[in-house]
Amino acid sequence: MARTMRLAVEKGVGIGAHPGFADLQGFGRRRLSLSSQELANLVTYQLGAAQAIARSVGGRVRHLKLHGALANIASEDASVARACYRSALSLDPDIVIMVMAATQQEAVVRELGCAWAGEIFADRAYNDDATLVDRKLPGAVIHDPDLAAKRILSMMNAGAIISESGKTIPTRIDTICLHGDTPDAVAMAAGIRTHLLRAGVELTPL
Amino acid sequence: MARTMRLAVEKGVGIGAHPGFADLQGFGRRRLSLSSQELANLVTYQLGAAQAIARSVGGRVRHLKLHGALANIASEDASVARACYRSALSLDPDIVIMVMAATQQEAVVRELGCAWAGEIFADRAYNDDATLVDRKLPGAVIHDPDLAAKRILSMMNAGAIISESGKTIPTRIDTICLHGDTPDAVAMAAGIRTHLLRAGVELTPL
Amino acid sequence: MARTMRLAVEKGVGIGAHPGFADLQGFGRRRLSLSSQELANLVTYQLGAAQAIARSVGGRVRHLKLHGALANIASEDASVARACYRSALSLDPDIVIMVMAATQQEAVVRELGCAWAGEIFADRAYNDDATLVDRKLPGAVIHDPDLAAKRILSMMNAGAIISESGKTIPTRIDTICLHGDTPDAVAMAAGIRTHLLRAGVELTPL
Amino acid sequence: MARTMRLAVEKGVGIGAHPGFADLQGFGRRRLSLSSQELANLVTYQLGAAQAIARSVGGRVRHLKLHGALANIASEDASVARACYRSALSLDPDIVIMVMAATQQEAVVRELGCAWAGEIFADRAYNDDATLVDRKLPGAVIHDPDLAAKRILSMMNAGAIISESGKTIPTRIDTICLHGDTPDAVAMAAGIRTHLLRAGVELTPL
Repeated sequence: MARTMRLAVEKGVGIGAHPGFADLQGFGRRRLSLSSQELANLVTYQLGAAQAIARSVGGRVRHLKLHGALANIASEDASVARACYRSALSLDPDIVIMVMAATQQEAVVRELGCAWAGEIFADRAYNDDATLVDRKLPGAVIHDPDLAAKRILSMMNAGAIISESGKTIPTRIDTICLHGDTPDAVAMAAGIRTHLLRAGVELTPL
Repeated sequence: MARTMRLAVEKGVGIGAHPGFADLQGFGRRRLSLSSQELANLVTYQLGAAQAIARSVGGRVRHLKLHGALANIASEDASVARACYRSALSLDPDIVIMVMAATQQEAVVRELGCAWAGEIFADRAYNDDATLVDRKLPGAVIHDPDLAAKRILSMMNAGAIISESGKTIPTRIDTICLHGDTPDAVAMAAGIRTHLLRAGVELTPL
Repeated sequence: MARTMRLAVEKGVGIGAHPGFADLQGFGRRRLSLSSQELANLVTYQLGAAQAIARSVGGRVRHLKLHGALANIASEDASVARACYRSALSLDPDIVIMVMAATQQEAVVRELGCAWAGEIFADRAYNDDATLVDRKLPGAVIHDPDLAAKRILSMMNAGAIISESGKTIPTRIDTICLHGDTPDAVAMAAGIRTHLLRAGVELTPL
Repeated sequence: MARTMRLAVEKGVGIGAHPGFADLQGFGRRRLSLSSQELANLVTYQLGAAQAIARSVGGRVRHLKLHGALANIASEDASVARACYRSALSLDPDIVIMVMAATQQEAVVRELGCAWAGEIFADRAYNDDATLVDRKLPGAVIHDPDLAAKRILSMMNAGAIISESGKTIPTRIDTICLHGDTPDAVAMAAGIRTHLLRAGVELTPL
């Protein structure tokens, strides 16, 4: 973590904390049932640690985004999103919360009145309620950069998430998520970037 | 952790961070070989997390003390103590470092010029170089409160650690450590406290 | 684990495997959402490991009992109990499955036609469907040996679980569970044993 | 693990157990100080679990090879190799132990008289005592398939390990190790295979 953050500071890349369930075996992608107090402690612990590591390399944590199964639960259940975001904002009232656009995550940041950014996924298919199609289902994860770029551009032009079934869910789109834990992640990022620039989209920091 | 800290804040007990190896199976009591950078990150991560949890319950981390095998290594190897203490002091220059008195830990805090407290153990036998007798050896851990109190009083009167072999190692004694993970911990604490008060010792916060 | 099993072999105590979620932080007491295949692998891995350790000390695993949140889920959801018990029986068709009496766990062992034992809890209050009252609720865990023994005797006499509300759920009672992770566990065990013997109950191995 | 083993069974690939330190954070590549009994339990637990998973998919564990830091320690310290190999052979007297050729690992399998295979590394540089150059040092890990293949062929022709300094250490070479956790692993494997076939080497199962 410290090494990556040092690199981020050198390259001027914004640092984000990405709290999730402490389930190393499942990479935080399996649902764990925690109380609101446990959720608040989890976020406080992980964000506090990330802030300390960032400071130790001359940087700071700019944004927070929930990881894996915790993010999925928070996109469906406002009480989970609220417990997590409140504890993050107690540690840093200026932190930018990245939310899964048009889900309960977005409802909660609007309610809390904090700084936030709406995120859509380049490489994941959507359900009709703007949550993500389960990773275990076919077509849930997109591996083709051209297809991913085309989807992103359609959504940006529509100002809306477009679900697998074709449903349009109007939302604010500030940032694009692309998973880094696939062999084709770098090619995907480069491909999408090229497509977006060609289409006249300007890429700026938050 | 949050629950314990909330209680500490209510009772006015000083909160300390206790970083150690992330070896849950071995409770941090097995030696793990880490680089100086890994050690610094470990302390930064764990102390940063503890500070955040403390703040979330209205408290603050007052002191730091290394745990288990990490503490034992740092009592023998100044470079390990230095990597750990430096990263703690970068996060909080006013933090009080609790050191195993008369070991390399003490040498390093004197070198760094930071706030510190010298600690002796009520329930552990000592080697002639002021390190602890290995837990696996017979007699390493003391379970009798009367014996523990008697040893503590002898050491306080002598202003020195007294090793198993009877060797006297002069040192500053500010605080007494008593392990909490034994069935008789509360009885030990009460017994030692009674003995010390009877002997006219005054107990004060750091 | 090896040390405990060696002692069990010496004392002639039956060895059981106790598979649960690999959630060390939560001691396996928080619900984790796993697929049937993941559940089967979890049981195969943990039982296989326990069998190997038992063999290495001259013993063998006699019974299997699910732990913590996994047991609670399996008491409500037959598909979870089935995935777990089937993989255990593939490894050892003669293993005795200990089930929470009168729950879906019992329904599944009856369906599978394997060797089993029905268990009631000495130190936990019951819901009306024979599941356990959530640990977080007041009165869920019983700490008084006299009260625990009285409850156990009432249930044995009734041949039924008696819920918190007084409901009677007829069931087969073969074995009694008493948690070992409380300071008063030994006193509880001794107290209950005395009460049962006085009441003319005979205690025998499975 | 179960999924990979199922694939191995389908493709007729030999299944091996690869026990190492339970240090997920460090991927088992950091030295942990364990007693002989702890080492024996670690191998028994992990091998027992692997055998059970293999059986559950219709396969069996054919060989055992120590992982990461545990392998490195066992290549230097015969007592560590002995504790590990003995517990593996108690579970399965016919298991093939893969050893780092010409190290203490090889000395111990010769002493125990068990089935074994001598392994050299395609992608790691060697010290003069046949141990591996520390991963942290420059040149320790080889990424070029042509260079790796050339080294392997030289060593096979010489019937010896050739260290970084050019020293020749005669040994039996039965199997070649290539790390799978690098982005170029597949290209490396294919490249080396091509080179070996071209040079007239025949590849056979153990």
